[in-house]
Amino acid sequence: MGNKKPIIGITMGDGSGNGPELCVKALTKPDMEQKCYPVVIGDARVIERAAAIVGHPEVKINPISSISEANFAPGTINVFHMDLIDFNRFEFGKVSAMCGNAAFQSVVKVIDLALKKEIDATVTNALNKEAINLAGFHYNGHTEIFAEYTGTKKYTMMLAYQNLRVVHVSTHVSLRKACDMVRKERVADVIRIAYQGCKDLGINEPRIGVAGLNPHAGENGLFGTEEIEEIIPAINTTWLEGIKAEGPVPPDTIFSKARGGWYDVVVCMYHDQGHIPIKVIGFNYNSQNGKWDAVEGVNITLGLPIIRTSVDHGTGFGHAGQGVANEASLVNAIDYAVIMAQNKKCRRN
Amino acid sequence: MGNKKPIIGITMGDGSGNGPELCVKALTKPDMEQKCYPVVIGDARVIERAAAIVGHPEVKINPISSISEANFAPGTINVFHMDLIDFNRFEFGKVSAMCGNAAFQSVVKVIDLALKKEIDATVTNALNKEAINLAGFHYNGHTEIFAEYTGTKKYTMMLAYQNLRVVHVSTHVSLRKACDMVRKERVADVIRIAYQGCKDLGINEPRIGVAGLNPHAGENGLFGTEEIEEIIPAINTTWLEGIKAEGPVPPDTIFSKARGGWYDVVVCMYHDQGHIPIKVIGFNYNSQNGKWDAVEGVNITLGLPIIRTSVDHGTGFGHAGQGVANEASLVNAIDYAVIMAQNKKCRRN
Repeated sequence: MGNKKPIIGITMGDGSGNGPELCVKALTKPDMEQKCYPVVIGDARVIERAAAIVGHPEVKINPISSISEANFAPGTINVFHMDLIDFNRFEFGKVSAMCGNAAFQSVVKVIDLALKKEIDATVTNALNKEAINLAGFHYNGHTEIFAEYTGTKKYTMMLAYQNLRVVHVSTHVSLRKACDMVRKERVADVIRIAYQGCKDLGINEPRIGVAGLNPHAGENGLFGTEEIEEIIPAINTTWLEGIKAEGPVPPDTIFSKARGGWYDVVVCMYHDQGHIPIKVIGFNYNSQNGKWDAVEGVNITLGLPIIRTSVDHGTGFGHAGQGVANEASLVNAIDYAVIMAQNKKCRRN
Repeated sequence: MGNKKPIIGITMGDGSGNGPELCVKALTKPDMEQKCYPVVIGDARVIERAAAIVGHPEVKINPISSISEANFAPGTINVFHMDLIDFNRFEFGKVSAMCGNAAFQSVVKVIDLALKKEIDATVTNALNKEAINLAGFHYNGHTEIFAEYTGTKKYTMMLAYQNLRVVHVSTHVSLRKACDMVRKERVADVIRIAYQGCKDLGINEPRIGVAGLNPHAGENGLFGTEEIEEIIPAINTTWLEGIKAEGPVPPDTIFSKARGGWYDVVVCMYHDQGHIPIKVIGFNYNSQNGKWDAVEGVNITLGLPIIRTSVDHGTGFGHAGQGVANEASLVNAIDYAVIMAQNKKCRRN
């Protein structure tokens, strides 16, 4: 890895979904080979078929079983071949234990490769939660798998679209539980992780906005007291550590401010507080042709010892195999992984 | 009121804020006189000074004490003069009981004029909650004043920006209390009010999307059970009444779908679920000049016996008196009031 371009491991995601097609679409983009050395972790035959589906039959698929076998020549896609998919039993758009297992094992493999520093960063395509559960792996999603397999206790999900970046105090829990999880220790941890995450993205003096939990950030205790009892103390604690976080800011205007350049990242108190603003601007449905014109945005797990970015959409089972999926989110995710890998190298050198 | 153009009563809002300037900016727009007959409810001297501030000293201010005295001639602004502001004690951008009282009494007056059918619709500029409280009137905002003074029990706040419209099961309560308020009876009422509200806006067959409360709409009970116990029963009840509401839809994608034409209105479970998507697209801050380029969107109270629309921003105390406030939201609010008044007349005739 003496070269400047980072090696990026990209999981194929659930093979019955749109992940394989997205991999080929993203990796055949003209500027991709200037950015990085990509390696897909998944199934070489599935990627080969995806290449035909998306109109790139000319692409050469190079199945490998170690990163050292990769051939980063133009027109070649290196696939770390896991060999876990039986083509006779394969169907597009179908939940199966077979594809769930293959998707899960690819995630475990990409984490392992990153921990061993054989790759510089990991990027994931969508998996299907039901499928991995059918295969016997009980996780709410990638984030939890990455946390467990890297032994990470303090982490947070960042979503990013253009200059809007959000991190979350909690994600996949009920809204009532999310209210319970707004505790000063956790809020302070997320502020710290957000601060370091911005640094990892090359932002030297991160400006952090912290959203309130309640409408109008509680209006001085009139609509809830979490701002006074938990969020303000967390901001005060991290301020003493030199992190200039501002808040609590009313949740309904903080994102417009962030888009207007006030904040590099917004600390959100629950899943939808951060997901709604990212998706309402990043996802655009075209009512004329009945398709999504853009499904953009990146999901980044902050706090891990390795770099992990991801698409922020699902497996698209409804249109898998048709070659119509939009690769913008995957390209965004690869771009973010490259930036983070380059910043990490700079710090190391 | 034999004429087709509706008479719209527009409160000036808190006189120390940007409301007076916004009134003059909106009512001097070239196409305003084609749309409606506007009457400002407030203080004639404050409006006169605002006209000078925003660069319209030529406007003739006509103080009136009944609607019959209005003179709807070009270049004239009719002001229902409440005479509650003492100019010697007046300051821009300052919370005061005097301006709070004047703002509150203007709201009471505009409601009275609408109930007596002397005007066809009401539009409100922002008031300052602290100021009305100082004046002895303890309300969370306009919506609650309108509900009380019209004797309305079942109502909801709609926000609208372009083709995105949201209504709320609850508004100014803590997020924990908002979770408690997601009850099937209330959700069904809000679906019904949203349906009628769309009809009032001239939408013949309203398509209604109902958001979940929890992330991923609870994922079949995995992250909360309100969807199963409260929201789905409410949808089933209103479906039997002929209202085709769809849901519960995951809260982080429902707004992109609505913008893409899937729904005419989204039923939201709490304040920020609806406010965040509207404001993130309607409010745009310009980091180059440090000003808000656009603060657009309309606030409409549905379920009242009278028509009420409003700006969806605050009093802008920070820049009041400088002539810089953006009138887009007030113009939107007047446009919505006109549409609703015309539809009401059509139904009556």
